[in-house]
Amino acid sequence: MGGEPDGRVQRSRKTVLTATLQLLAEAGLSGVTVDEVSRRSGVAKTTIYRHWSSRSALLLDACSNLGAKPEVPDTGTLKGDLMALATRMASRLRSDRWATILPSMIDAAERDPELAEVHTRLHAGFMEPLHVVIDRAKTKGELAPDCEASEIIASVVGPLYYRRWFSRQPLDEAFAKSVVDHVVHGLSAS
Amino acid sequence: MGGEPDGRVQRSRKTVLTATLQLLAEAGLSGVTVDEVSRRSGVAKTTIYRHWSSRSALLLDACSNLGAKPEVPDTGTLKGDLMALATRMASRLRSDRWATILPSMIDAAERDPELAEVHTRLHAGFMEPLHVVIDRAKTKGELAPDCEASEIIASVVGPLYYRRWFSRQPLDEAFAKSVVDHVVHGLSAS
Repeated sequence: MGGEPDGRVQRSRKTVLTATLQLLAEAGLSGVTVDEVSRRSGVAKTTIYRHWSSRSALLLDACSNLGAKPEVPDTGTLKGDLMALATRMASRLRSDRWATILPSMIDAAERDPELAEVHTRLHAGFMEPLHVVIDRAKTKGELAPDCEASEIIASVVGPLYYRRWFSRQPLDEAFAKSVVDHVVHGLSAS
Repeated sequence: MGGEPDGRVQRSRKTVLTATLQLLAEAGLSGVTVDEVSRRSGVAKTTIYRHWSSRSALLLDACSNLGAKPEVPDTGTLKGDLMALATRMASRLRSDRWATILPSMIDAAERDPELAEVHTRLHAGFMEPLHVVIDRAKTKGELAPDCEASEIIASVVGPLYYRRWFSRQPLDEAFAKSVVDHVVHGLSAS
């Protein structure tokens, strides 16, 4: 069974990544040290460093597995696509582990350029489906070519993030839909 | 000079609050312990606990002095008032110390209900001028009475916070004004 060593390596990698995420959720970013990950996972530090060159590399790997790559909706209209993305995002903000973990990274990024880089890469991945549906709307002529995608994204995602982490108010489907309604309405008339 | 002891108390309180904010900015919330504040400020722990009953009370006091209470603009229109508030907020997000400190509190609030309460009170204070201008617009009939103030606020403030802490894109006056433009336009037509 030549595949067994690989299987062991896979299992040990998975154990380390799981322990990293558990520590992040429980104690925030400052709770995640390679020492502590080693203790929690039972995997030796030397083994951890064999797979990940640094704590940042480990964190990036653990966090990039936080959610399955979000599917890109194709409802036929920009409004429908944004509604689908915003309601899914609201649901993940309400219940996913990454919603508890992300503020740790945002905080650390204020002082640690390496983690800021980790976060920037994660963030770009989270926002990718929004870029895809906006680009498609431009190609189809549904949206003017000079519309700033990053402004539309900030107007859709910003209010959701604001409710989750800053005002801590209910983040239900109705709110997500109302945000998209206003954004799309503002676009069509500007 | 009977005032001198009071002056000393005032100075020592101020030293402690300044040390608390310095530690927050440098090391994040986990860096702020009463031990460390005592070391940094040179004020004895017993004295610190005489003025503040807990670490949370100290943090709340330190943070509530972070910015002068923002003035409420009165430009004559809701749009003008929101522009004034949003551009001022963008400017503070670019340069004020609280912009570096707030993520620490957001992160800690995920796991610490007492700090979540501290943050909720601070946040309510930050948002108060927005409520005032929205209420005034309702009184004047510029805005329908059933408009949800909290939704308008999320749509104005959310994109600014999003740019500062999540996408880390330029947060200039033009962006703040464009956000308000779209929000007010969406309101007038809905």
